Amino acid sequence: MNLNRISEPVRTELKEFENQFADVLKTRVALIDLITKYILRQKGKKIRPILVLLSAKLCGEINRRTYIAANLVELLHTATLIHDDVVDDAKTRRGIASVNAVWKNKASVLIGDYLLSKGLLLSLENNEYDFLQLTSEAVKRMSEGELLQIQKARNFDATEETYFRVISDKTASLIKTCCKLGALSTAKDKTDIDRLGSFGENIGISFQLRDDILDYTGRKKLLGKSTGNDLKEKKFTLPLIVALRNAPKKKSAGIMKLIKSDRTKKFDEVYEFVVEFGGVDYALKKADEYSSAAKTALNDFKSSDVKDAMIGFVEFVSRRDY
Amino acid sequence: MNLNRISEPVRTELKEFENQFADVLKTRVALIDLITKYILRQKGKKIRPILVLLSAKLCGEINRRTYIAANLVELLHTATLIHDDVVDDAKTRRGIASVNAVWKNKASVLIGDYLLSKGLLLSLENNEYDFLQLTSEAVKRMSEGELLQIQKARNFDATEETYFRVISDKTASLIKTCCKLGALSTAKDKTDIDRLGSFGENIGISFQLRDDILDYTGRKKLLGKSTGNDLKEKKFTLPLIVALRNAPKKKSAGIMKLIKSDRTKKFDEVYEFVVEFGGVDYALKKADEYSSAAKTALNDFKSSDVKDAMIGFVEFVSRRDY
Repeated sequence: MNLNRISEPVRTELKEFENQFADVLKTRVALIDLITKYILRQKGKKIRPILVLLSAKLCGEINRRTYIAANLVELLHTATLIHDDVVDDAKTRRGIASVNAVWKNKASVLIGDYLLSKGLLLSLENNEYDFLQLTSEAVKRMSEGELLQIQKARNFDATEETYFRVISDKTASLIKTCCKLGALSTAKDKTDIDRLGSFGENIGISFQLRDDILDYTGRKKLLGKSTGNDLKEKKFTLPLIVALRNAPKKKSAGIMKLIKSDRTKKFDEVYEFVVEFGGVDYALKKADEYSSAAKTALNDFKSSDVKDAMIGFVEFVSRRDY
Repeated sequence: MNLNRISEPVRTELKEFENQFADVLKTRVALIDLITKYILRQKGKKIRPILVLLSAKLCGEINRRTYIAANLVELLHTATLIHDDVVDDAKTRRGIASVNAVWKNKASVLIGDYLLSKGLLLSLENNEYDFLQLTSEAVKRMSEGELLQIQKARNFDATEETYFRVISDKTASLIKTCCKLGALSTAKDKTDIDRLGSFGENIGISFQLRDDILDYTGRKKLLGKSTGNDLKEKKFTLPLIVALRNAPKKKSAGIMKLIKSDRTKKFDEVYEFVVEFGGVDYALKKADEYSSAAKTALNDFKSSDVKDAMIGFVEFVSRRDY
């Protein structure tokens, strides 16, 4: 399943969301209008609003509150992307020049802040305090997760346990929030909200696991992404953590020394080490477990095209080539 | 009056705020603790919490809600400073190395996001939705004001009217919010909240006017600040806008040409132009008007050491040497 087919059961609603989102972005400051129109032209995949809409439709009937939730997460996500590009000094985003490349860092950070405050105000104006609580918690966890990962990279002391805490915080928390917000807007039964939360948490972890595996095994040509980036930043992801644990002490110590060095060829050596000592296999197995858990979380919902699409989304996340 | 004397009527409460703020910053992630402890060591002037406390005490008795407001604005302000330093690539802050100089941009942006979300969660946990509404509105206006100023700088079409809109949004809105939040936490009479809002708005505008005047007339040695920064960024502040309006058309056109050029000596020429055609005098007169309006806003409060301190704060803002 591709994203087009996944979003099919909420196609009309996604269109409605897109119209609303363009409206939400309108302002009295011409420069803001100019930049937000540019952002809309970048056309993101809209994974987060799609998850909000599907989760909502699975639990009940999409309504005004669902759209508020979808706008909130997309505003937050867009703000984060713009700020990320400033920090990473990225020159492009989604195939065209990044906002910071066109309007410089200062205006980009300000636009990010502006979008964030719009999200807050949208929720406050509509008395959606539960939405705000969930979203703020996610923002806090996202920054905590990233900072914990940086801390572990500095101290070279990541473990499987801290790794899962990091990815649950930095990646799964927002995906989980999208699903919970959607459910919150329509569900009559509180249990349904928890089920969708579990779906989002598991799919988020599975997604990040695969992303981290691909950073070792991905083929550049196929994915348009280069490998070895995590190693460059001294991020210890699951494949490496597990291989270091499995390998003979002396061998692991040698690899640690290599990682701390600045030797240019080190990625190939570490890659071979990670494969040889079962790091990739273990991480793949874990990713499958989390994907299964995501599907299981939907067990008690009766069959429907929406449920099929969400199962399809799990497969979409899992499917990526190695 | 200096800040020490201004904060005298809320000295005990400021101490209590400082203890609470250190507590609010505590987390389960060691790296976050390390960075926030470093931030606390930078020891800011705490102008915003002082304004919250004074405003609250002027209108009633300082209570739990007042401290929540003080923590909220200080969290927001700290986050903004850290993000600003990243954008401006500043190497120092308050005399010691900036957070980005020590921990790099990525960790700095994340810490800023973390502090922001802490502020939101603090308000949500305590059901302080009015606080959030006021604060989000201020964040939105701050980014709008800065972006409008950038837009005007690009198009060279600033007017007195847009100038006042810019500084009301980018500077006065947060000062106003501090005063309103303080009043909101204690006032029995809604009118008092509006009075404090007017006090904050006027003092904020007066402050920014003087800052913009100093960028022309300030003496580097005395202030530790260099002059001509606004001109470098092509920001048209009131002294320049007024001089361009007052001078003969031909003269103004010549100055505009000079500003658009990259001539190194241009600041001295523009400075003389701005003084000669009454830009500095006009802006000083305006700043005095806003300072007076700030004091007038407190007219209906009976005399007290708190009121004296707030009048003293107006004079503190006005007093800066030229």
